[in-house]
Amino acid sequence: MTFDALWESILDVGQEPSTGGYRRFAWNDADLTLREWFRDCASQRAMTTEEDRNGNLWAWWMPAGWHGDPKDAFVTGSHLDSVPDGGAYDGPLGVVSAFAAVDLVRARGIVPTRPIAVVAFSDEEGARFGVACVGSQLSTGALKPERALALRDADGISLGEALTKAGRDPRHLGPDHTLTERVGVYVELHVEQGRALDLMEHPIAVASSIWPHGRWLFTFTGEANHAGATRLVDRRDPMLAYATTVHTARRAAEVHEAVATFGKLRVLPNGANAIPSEIRAWLDARAADEDTLARLVEHISAEARAQSTRDNIGLHIEAESVTPIVEFPPEPRARIIRALRWLDDVPVLPTAAGHDAGILSAKVPTAMLFVRNPTGVSHSPAEYASPEDCRSGAEALADVMADYVS
Amino acid sequence: MTFDALWESILDVGQEPSTGGYRRFAWNDADLTLREWFRDCASQRAMTTEEDRNGNLWAWWMPAGWHGDPKDAFVTGSHLDSVPDGGAYDGPLGVVSAFAAVDLVRARGIVPTRPIAVVAFSDEEGARFGVACVGSQLSTGALKPERALALRDADGISLGEALTKAGRDPRHLGPDHTLTERVGVYVELHVEQGRALDLMEHPIAVASSIWPHGRWLFTFTGEANHAGATRLVDRRDPMLAYATTVHTARRAAEVHEAVATFGKLRVLPNGANAIPSEIRAWLDARAADEDTLARLVEHISAEARAQSTRDNIGLHIEAESVTPIVEFPPEPRARIIRALRWLDDVPVLPTAAGHDAGILSAKVPTAMLFVRNPTGVSHSPAEYASPEDCRSGAEALADVMADYVS
Repeated sequence: MTFDALWESILDVGQEPSTGGYRRFAWNDADLTLREWFRDCASQRAMTTEEDRNGNLWAWWMPAGWHGDPKDAFVTGSHLDSVPDGGAYDGPLGVVSAFAAVDLVRARGIVPTRPIAVVAFSDEEGARFGVACVGSQLSTGALKPERALALRDADGISLGEALTKAGRDPRHLGPDHTLTERVGVYVELHVEQGRALDLMEHPIAVASSIWPHGRWLFTFTGEANHAGATRLVDRRDPMLAYATTVHTARRAAEVHEAVATFGKLRVLPNGANAIPSEIRAWLDARAADEDTLARLVEHISAEARAQSTRDNIGLHIEAESVTPIVEFPPEPRARIIRALRWLDDVPVLPTAAGHDAGILSAKVPTAMLFVRNPTGVSHSPAEYASPEDCRSGAEALADVMADYVS
Repeated sequence: MTFDALWESILDVGQEPSTGGYRRFAWNDADLTLREWFRDCASQRAMTTEEDRNGNLWAWWMPAGWHGDPKDAFVTGSHLDSVPDGGAYDGPLGVVSAFAAVDLVRARGIVPTRPIAVVAFSDEEGARFGVACVGSQLSTGALKPERALALRDADGISLGEALTKAGRDPRHLGPDHTLTERVGVYVELHVEQGRALDLMEHPIAVASSIWPHGRWLFTFTGEANHAGATRLVDRRDPMLAYATTVHTARRAAEVHEAVATFGKLRVLPNGANAIPSEIRAWLDARAADEDTLARLVEHISAEARAQSTRDNIGLHIEAESVTPIVEFPPEPRARIIRALRWLDDVPVLPTAAGHDAGILSAKVPTAMLFVRNPTGVSHSPAEYASPEDCRSGAEALADVMADYVS
């Protein structure tokens, strides 16, 4: 099957007609449809699908005559879920390119001497349960099963309940002790989420590192009251301290040459004629190194606390997840650059976005390829990569696969 | 039945255990339960319940030997629905006090010479469909049925669909042409939503006017993008212009000696790692007169537009509802004050909160009684009035009823 046909075969799954964005969230109907699509892609290629204890999907192509469990495999893939109203590329491009690379390697008549796997990690975006990279974090042991099972979505449904409803046994969650043995290297192809390649006029890059990043929940607590009848002096309106903190975060990000964003908010009771009792606001912050990230978040927290005290507002700040810097190892990167000689001078770029490859790097050698994004827009229906660049990405991934398995 | 027993009979309907607040929204289960409770109260008192074309409930006590339709009635009541996580008093206190006043008037052996009605207006708060006083506005013709039927709740369910599901015929909605003939005077008792009575040490007040007020929807439109990988200079994040506008609204309210509140917000896509594409924020603004209100909203709008232009953000501002000042007529007010001589020196107060009595005043004479709220807190689970003051309120309402119907 051509790359284009494979790509088009999932374009309508989980797409919201009113926005054009995707709503592929962990264990929802769209996610289950994509899991079936993954199994179909595998069986069309005579690959064996395995869903591991954490819901990650693995499609295996074993060398002829191989006996026993896979070992030291070349693994490639990404994830199939999306952020709310996300784009088509973030995640699926890596899985589709992985199957396309298998087709290209076979078309070249290459007979692999080591196992190959295409993988789709479960719940990378964390859109539904609030924690990112749940599948890979469970497998590496970075996320404890008890904590994962207790996560709840906006409707109060726990991850455990969602798994049960999807016919999975939530008691299976836990570290994957076969990971280091099975995975020789994990190479994740991903659409770029900035404009660096566009500015450099290159279609493909290799990752150097992932910025340290995290998510902090700021809970501002005031007092619900009537929006008409309550005098300004009697108010304890948490919206004001929140609004101040939005601007503080932007200014602090400029000072520290970092990024800081409030993109998710929950207002209680959220009535037009009621002063809010509580604002829950999630800060996403990322910086080039861990010290800078810590100083950035402390800067924002200190000013938010000072403003809340002035306004007689309660403030609780909780780190929901903090991911250290990931420096991708030099060996696979050097080998990939050699395999991609034809692209001459492949750029090596850091990224501020988290990825399963970053999580897995704690246990196995990992590397990433980025495909040019001409606008840099991501996590949006407007996310885009040209068909030519996507095909170049699949070709490049096939070259890397061929180099590793020949 | 005593006031206290009547009051306690609805305290558990629609109460959310996790917050202690009420979720009695138009045509939801709690609302339907309260409608059944209203019918029971009426039938226990041999009053005939009628649900009018707009879902407002009327319980009639007709003079002995009366023939034909009611005419020139003394009408009292309020509403049974709540804001999200609202208090127990806003609305239900007026309906419970109305039935209690009927009991007190009967206990005094008074034989009415004109019809009496207890009324519960439908959907006063507008918590579910976004427009306040839907029942009374439909009946007076202030709200067109086509517009009402098209209103949608957060799940996309229209008012028309909600009515059909509740077994009502949405085609019935429209002006109540019998209103001016039937209603001689409408007196609404309500918990005070500020602290004026507490500061004056009085249990009961009579209303002078309702401040002009309205609801404006501010839609800030930017561009969804990745919260990590998008450089600050490439962002079009509408959260910043929204945050500026929150502070502008507070400052403008101070300048104009008015109130302005952003209490309801919808963020799209509302993902922790996505820059928002759109912020929908509802401004509630109220002032002592219409000119001041217009200048207040223009002040906020102009600064919001200027900030949005600077940030390269789209901004659309739409007035969802604007209610002119209501000056309650002097005649019923003077009569009520005379009937409440025993309270000596009943304060006469304006209110910044909208009420069905304000809507009805366009068609029939109306008046309001307020019951002291010791903290001034309203639209919150902490809303409160003492049992003594509530009983005084029912006694006062019985006095007014007796004065009108003897």
